[in-house]
Amino acid sequence: MDTQSEMKLFTLNSNEPLAQEISEILEVPLGKSSVVRFSDGEMQVNIEESVRGDDIYLVQSTSQPVNEHVMELLIMVDALKRASAKTINVVIPYYGYARQDRKARPREPITAKLLANLLEKAGVSRVITLDLHAPQIQGFFNIPVDQLLGIPILGEHFKSKEIDDLVVVAPNTNGLNRVRKMANILDAPLAFIDKRQPEPNMPEVRNVVGAVEGKNVIIVDDMMDTADTVTVAAEILYENGVHDIYACGTHAVFSDPAVIKVEQSPIKELVITNSIFQPEEKRLEKITTLSVAPLLADALLRVQHEHSVSVLFD
Amino acid sequence: MDTQSEMKLFTLNSNEPLAQEISEILEVPLGKSSVVRFSDGEMQVNIEESVRGDDIYLVQSTSQPVNEHVMELLIMVDALKRASAKTINVVIPYYGYARQDRKARPREPITAKLLANLLEKAGVSRVITLDLHAPQIQGFFNIPVDQLLGIPILGEHFKSKEIDDLVVVAPNTNGLNRVRKMANILDAPLAFIDKRQPEPNMPEVRNVVGAVEGKNVIIVDDMMDTADTVTVAAEILYENGVHDIYACGTHAVFSDPAVIKVEQSPIKELVITNSIFQPEEKRLEKITTLSVAPLLADALLRVQHEHSVSVLFD
Amino acid sequence: MDTQSEMKLFTLNSNEPLAQEISEILEVPLGKSSVVRFSDGEMQVNIEESVRGDDIYLVQSTSQPVNEHVMELLIMVDALKRASAKTINVVIPYYGYARQDRKARPREPITAKLLANLLEKAGVSRVITLDLHAPQIQGFFNIPVDQLLGIPILGEHFKSKEIDDLVVVAPNTNGLNRVRKMANILDAPLAFIDKRQPEPNMPEVRNVVGAVEGKNVIIVDDMMDTADTVTVAAEILYENGVHDIYACGTHAVFSDPAVIKVEQSPIKELVITNSIFQPEEKRLEKITTLSVAPLLADALLRVQHEHSVSVLFD
Amino acid sequence: MDTQSEMKLFTLNSNEPLAQEISEILEVPLGKSSVVRFSDGEMQVNIEESVRGDDIYLVQSTSQPVNEHVMELLIMVDALKRASAKTINVVIPYYGYARQDRKARPREPITAKLLANLLEKAGVSRVITLDLHAPQIQGFFNIPVDQLLGIPILGEHFKSKEIDDLVVVAPNTNGLNRVRKMANILDAPLAFIDKRQPEPNMPEVRNVVGAVEGKNVIIVDDMMDTADTVTVAAEILYENGVHDIYACGTHAVFSDPAVIKVEQSPIKELVITNSIFQPEEKRLEKITTLSVAPLLADALLRVQHEHSVSVLFD
Amino acid sequence: MDTQSEMKLFTLNSNEPLAQEISEILEVPLGKSSVVRFSDGEMQVNIEESVRGDDIYLVQSTSQPVNEHVMELLIMVDALKRASAKTINVVIPYYGYARQDRKARPREPITAKLLANLLEKAGVSRVITLDLHAPQIQGFFNIPVDQLLGIPILGEHFKSKEIDDLVVVAPNTNGLNRVRKMANILDAPLAFIDKRQPEPNMPEVRNVVGAVEGKNVIIVDDMMDTADTVTVAAEILYENGVHDIYACGTHAVFSDPAVIKVEQSPIKELVITNSIFQPEEKRLEKITTLSVAPLLADALLRVQHEHSVSVLFD
Amino acid sequence: MDTQSEMKLFTLNSNEPLAQEISEILEVPLGKSSVVRFSDGEMQVNIEESVRGDDIYLVQSTSQPVNEHVMELLIMVDALKRASAKTINVVIPYYGYARQDRKARPREPITAKLLANLLEKAGVSRVITLDLHAPQIQGFFNIPVDQLLGIPILGEHFKSKEIDDLVVVAPNTNGLNRVRKMANILDAPLAFIDKRQPEPNMPEVRNVVGAVEGKNVIIVDDMMDTADTVTVAAEILYENGVHDIYACGTHAVFSDPAVIKVEQSPIKELVITNSIFQPEEKRLEKITTLSVAPLLADALLRVQHEHSVSVLFD
Repeated sequence: MDTQSEMKLFTLNSNEPLAQEISEILEVPLGKSSVVRFSDGEMQVNIEESVRGDDIYLVQSTSQPVNEHVMELLIMVDALKRASAKTINVVIPYYGYARQDRKARPREPITAKLLANLLEKAGVSRVITLDLHAPQIQGFFNIPVDQLLGIPILGEHFKSKEIDDLVVVAPNTNGLNRVRKMANILDAPLAFIDKRQPEPNMPEVRNVVGAVEGKNVIIVDDMMDTADTVTVAAEILYENGVHDIYACGTHAVFSDPAVIKVEQSPIKELVITNSIFQPEEKRLEKITTLSVAPLLADALLRVQHEHSVSVLFD
Repeated sequence: MDTQSEMKLFTLNSNEPLAQEISEILEVPLGKSSVVRFSDGEMQVNIEESVRGDDIYLVQSTSQPVNEHVMELLIMVDALKRASAKTINVVIPYYGYARQDRKARPREPITAKLLANLLEKAGVSRVITLDLHAPQIQGFFNIPVDQLLGIPILGEHFKSKEIDDLVVVAPNTNGLNRVRKMANILDAPLAFIDKRQPEPNMPEVRNVVGAVEGKNVIIVDDMMDTADTVTVAAEILYENGVHDIYACGTHAVFSDPAVIKVEQSPIKELVITNSIFQPEEKRLEKITTLSVAPLLADALLRVQHEHSVSVLFD
Repeated sequence: MDTQSEMKLFTLNSNEPLAQEISEILEVPLGKSSVVRFSDGEMQVNIEESVRGDDIYLVQSTSQPVNEHVMELLIMVDALKRASAKTINVVIPYYGYARQDRKARPREPITAKLLANLLEKAGVSRVITLDLHAPQIQGFFNIPVDQLLGIPILGEHFKSKEIDDLVVVAPNTNGLNRVRKMANILDAPLAFIDKRQPEPNMPEVRNVVGAVEGKNVIIVDDMMDTADTVTVAAEILYENGVHDIYACGTHAVFSDPAVIKVEQSPIKELVITNSIFQPEEKRLEKITTLSVAPLLADALLRVQHEHSVSVLFD
Repeated sequence: MDTQSEMKLFTLNSNEPLAQEISEILEVPLGKSSVVRFSDGEMQVNIEESVRGDDIYLVQSTSQPVNEHVMELLIMVDALKRASAKTINVVIPYYGYARQDRKARPREPITAKLLANLLEKAGVSRVITLDLHAPQIQGFFNIPVDQLLGIPILGEHFKSKEIDDLVVVAPNTNGLNRVRKMANILDAPLAFIDKRQPEPNMPEVRNVVGAVEGKNVIIVDDMMDTADTVTVAAEILYENGVHDIYACGTHAVFSDPAVIKVEQSPIKELVITNSIFQPEEKRLEKITTLSVAPLLADALLRVQHEHSVSVLFD
Repeated sequence: MDTQSEMKLFTLNSNEPLAQEISEILEVPLGKSSVVRFSDGEMQVNIEESVRGDDIYLVQSTSQPVNEHVMELLIMVDALKRASAKTINVVIPYYGYARQDRKARPREPITAKLLANLLEKAGVSRVITLDLHAPQIQGFFNIPVDQLLGIPILGEHFKSKEIDDLVVVAPNTNGLNRVRKMANILDAPLAFIDKRQPEPNMPEVRNVVGAVEGKNVIIVDDMMDTADTVTVAAEILYENGVHDIYACGTHAVFSDPAVIKVEQSPIKELVITNSIFQPEEKRLEKITTLSVAPLLADALLRVQHEHSVSVLFD
Repeated sequence: MDTQSEMKLFTLNSNEPLAQEISEILEVPLGKSSVVRFSDGEMQVNIEESVRGDDIYLVQSTSQPVNEHVMELLIMVDALKRASAKTINVVIPYYGYARQDRKARPREPITAKLLANLLEKAGVSRVITLDLHAPQIQGFFNIPVDQLLGIPILGEHFKSKEIDDLVVVAPNTNGLNRVRKMANILDAPLAFIDKRQPEPNMPEVRNVVGAVEGKNVIIVDDMMDTADTVTVAAEILYENGVHDIYACGTHAVFSDPAVIKVEQSPIKELVITNSIFQPEEKRLEKITTLSVAPLLADALLRVQHEHSVSVLFD
């Protein structure tokens, strides 16, 4: 991209407030477009201004309802391509279907890869995203992928709280590297929870591996869907005699009844980001939402002006 | 495909009764598979028997909710490909988004083409379909497409009724060739309805071009979505003094309140096919549903045994 | 494309006068190139100036001899690509083989799609064309296609003649939407001709559907090849007692003996465009040729300067 | 390909007698197909029997008129692909445009490579060909290419003549390896002709490098187009005091007035093959035509039955 | 693949003994081929028997020297493709460059994905592999990948030893899921080692998280390269008062001086597989090598006979 | 490429001095990057400055060790692509594996084509190279290839020596056109050496075809690998009574013991270029090395500023 091209910012329907926030930071207005839904469920995308020769940045989290949001994105990209956009940069703060990233069992699809293929086929030039469930998903693409990280934002929040006697806890054995990065930021020891069902119909064994008794803990995950993982972890930690329980995660999927579980859990504060839009009824007092708009806006600006994005990777 | 490979028939969720009917005609059981929907809206496809080296026939209309049905289809195809199916033949009795087949206005997507690209990218080997909204959609694919026709089935029905003084009527200026084919089968004259709004805010002018007074008429369309086109046509014809009014169309999309409009219209009998599944509440007494299962089953058998499908094209 | 790149205009051999006219309007000289034909029929393309980093616009109708013109185009595009042109925009005023756009019968090719694939494979970046036989051909391409329309130019001509008692007539049941657009421009009623052969060896039945007696008529088609369709329509209308007969069509293919038929027909004036070059001997007094050069030149300028082309779509 | 699939042999129009000969050797009838040419020059391919699931072998030399023959081939391949042929093996005894195999000057196309790309894009599975102008053209394809050689057939002919005092002569510095292969077969010394224009407007210098005086010579080339190269070589050799002059080449393009030049040249016998069809008027008494049908038929059989083709490479 | 095709087994140079073992189990001889290395370092692949129409299984670990082995593999695949093999199934017991599976830092390649692209481009039909460093690497391919697992083989070995008071230990926070699978098989608790450098120039802090004192431990990793990770872990555990120390890992890369470190470490037994060939000098007494040949042979047979491979996934 | 983008020059490890020389001519510093080689042989590429939006020129001869240099190149290109370089222009002064450019025998790979495919797949935008073994290798690519020529540089050297009674000699029957170009520059007659083994186990026959006795000769080849060809030619010429023997070739591969053979041969001066880096021990006094850096630098500048490269082709 050369700096002579115009930068245009568009949003689809999954997270318009975030796009609006990015628009205000960048002082680039949101492009005029709309998605009409016909009575038979088909969508029609309308781009109401010229995009010929422009560098397009299109914001869309593939969050719930994921299939609708994916199709919206693909159709919009097709329209932009046929309308002669110069580059089509999609900003996917939350990349859905990311947990289907390998054949865990026979004859499974790898839907996270399928989506990568579909996006490339539709005409995407580049992906800007945040905290992929597995970093290897970058490798599902043949086009450049800039993955930004939420942990520094979440870590900064906890650092400013100056919590004593802190232990950082992984709620299971997945993504322990991410948890370790948080432990590094806060200079705190690590622990993790080992849940296992020794035999069918036997009660699950739930151990905390690492010393947590009498400590303040932060449970770290990348996404919270049903919030089962994080709330069960909180209970186990509570039973193991910890003091204050904090939790955090970049992506708050919050399938029902996630919010109720969080409310009823011993978690004192749950910190999330606005990578996924939350309706009013899901905004609890104990939930703190940090904005990723400044981070994304900075990345977009750097991409457009061809500066290195790498300073945003730490 | 060589005849030594095993033929396996699978269905997804849009029209299982039709797939069941095809299965019975072919005496090939439906393959074991399921689609699990998680609380966050993501789907997981499970194929519960080996498909390695098999010729797969997968039945899915991309009818309402179209985006869900499209994604179901793409994910299933990805799973079949990764499970080493020999060929993946998708049977799409109703091809959704078919009306978005050209740039009618600036900066429009061509969604029907996008779907063709996505299906090929996912790994489809061949498409078997019925009455595409425009026959040129075949050319959106680089893989073989067998398009079967519903007009002979619908025409046979009317022929057997031996209606006198018949005129075949196109409800508008689209797809007049299809209507003409019906006129040929029934050896009847043609007419069409010319609706036009001369100027904004002026009443629409609605002319019947061709002689219909005192005749029995059949209105022919390829798909009925809101049923506006066909019921308004029926009213205009009624005002022009026709006798009995019949109507037909292969694909009954029936977005609400299509069925109510049909019920209240002067149409005496509306003949459709089961290319799209109709729930109980949409089955009016005046609607006759013909099955396309024998036609599709015959096509599948011919494809599998490498016989010419061309006899099914007339 | 950014405006810093140089715009270069080239032509091949099918319609050099049109390219020359565009060149004069744009004040961009025609690039130096030639096509040498060896004694064994092979062609050699020579580009005699640097095109490195330039935006190329290459004018070629794939008119008769169509296979020579197609190969000329493909070879030139290969040469431009290997000579490091930045973008290769082909301007195809008349897109040949457009009638082979679907499998009308078993085992037919879809040659219009094949050509789209060949053009993309050779290295074309974008297509600018005029009145595709079916608008769905846009969807045969994965690259941007700008389809311009001839009906407004043809319509303007007839509007300025202020003909009374006008009826716009489709010579058959194809492309009735195109005819309807002309009827809208001229605010005139529609009619069409229904030709049918009830049984083999029986005489063809030829009906005019719609009221035409005593009226002035304009027969509207998109292309005239043998001119059979339009001249037979003129005769049928004449037999049905019309007054003056006009006819028009964007693309004058004029295979022999089309011009003789037009001369001998009751058509008073036939209006065409210069999308296909006509040699001197095919220029009858009763044929009026309108130039599409201003329309194409305007489109090229807008593409090059990245302005919206959409104002040219109406 | 598995041996259960049916082998079907089709021909297009460039060299039907050769296809017929292959058909007789294989005892496989020529498939029913035709190419209709409309009055505007467009072609329509008709395949008049089912090819679904079959292994197709399609014979077409891309000889003069080369563009027509190339387009015929591409369109037929598209039709076969869409008609669900299992494999499409094209037999191209003479591969036209082979001399445009590199950028000899700036901004030249590489048309031989373009054709390879077009054939692959259209859907060809494999190419069987004979004496490519440069063997590197095999590498223009990503699909298997079986290149058969004409030199053994031509060499066998001369061997059986038992000519004494033989020298094998290359008419220029191209393809000297091919000539050397002939020299090996006949156990004869080599010579070549060095033509050069030292400066513009100076007479060409023509040297025979190697001892030829009083010898019998065979001039060896791969193709004869205008026959200039071979007849001028014959004259130079004649001036250098050789005895009998023979010449040979696999591909007899014979652009006018090649045959007249051969007739008037001091060549005693010119040996060619039937890779390109020769009309009656080009069949001189001094020209001997050897058939490549047995070689091609053997190759087809081996491909179909998955035997090694390599025995045919020597 | 249909069962009529012949199965042929080939090996390249990285692990011929493993290929030989598979050959003996399958009773399929190793195909005749060789790799000649010229004095300038270029390789020439020779396939010395026909592979036309055959299903090829080609065994090559991309182990050290990895670039040589990768190029060997790519060139052999090109040769097989051009020799008309029906399918090319590559068996890659050890997939090199697997640790470069994401952009860990700015401007890094994703070499594991690059290799996947190169293999597909060269013509591979399917990959059969063992214990990918990250399971997401399956998603780097668009072709089927069958990933077999070494943990069951390694686990069975330890199970049969009936070690008391066992703790399964992860040597770092990577791939904890793999370690957990081993803990499940052995019904043992988990622990892991948390190494961290709080600040530059400060000594590394090395904690064992989980109770290990007085226990017998098995350190589980997927690959051992310099053997630093596993031997340092052994030392830390030793310092923490464990009893017997076992270790295991599927892939023994063993870069120098790995074997010396293992010899000198407190590890009692190190269990590896023969996925990578070990020269004599790297075979210590305390190293036990289990063969993956039976597992791979079983997978190949199932692929060839189109049976489900899924029973091998557990 | 537009001139607003920044030009960045990078080198890999095969020929850093040449890259350094180009850098100095262009006054463009070498970009900061490194290739780390791990103890297991895997390489890690590090690009230590931003390349986002830049036009990259990357210098790498694929000389010995060829497989290492090829993989280095492919991995670096992947890294550049993922780091959002605008264009990736690879400068390959010596293109390795070029002799594997056709199937000379059955079941051979075409490795020169495989490399072209791998480079394109990795993300290369353009290739700038020097004296391809066969010019047809340009056609192995679908991207632009600029092939520069070494003969003018080598010819200029000999021209300035003003050698009398000169004959230009081809050491075999390959690439005689290249030799002829040298003869043209020097206005000298041609000869060639015909080596042949009439029957197995019989001594090779070695003829000089053309008059060389008492002349000064220049042996011309494109590359010298083992130097067998050129030194044996020198001996044969010596035996045939020539006076001074010169030799030249663009690419000095110099596999051992090439340099010893050259030293001991009757060659008086061997002229090469620095397309391949020569270590100190291979620099004989009788070897003259001409630099191609000015030629390459000029080409890079022209590509970057979009001027015609064609002036460099002669």
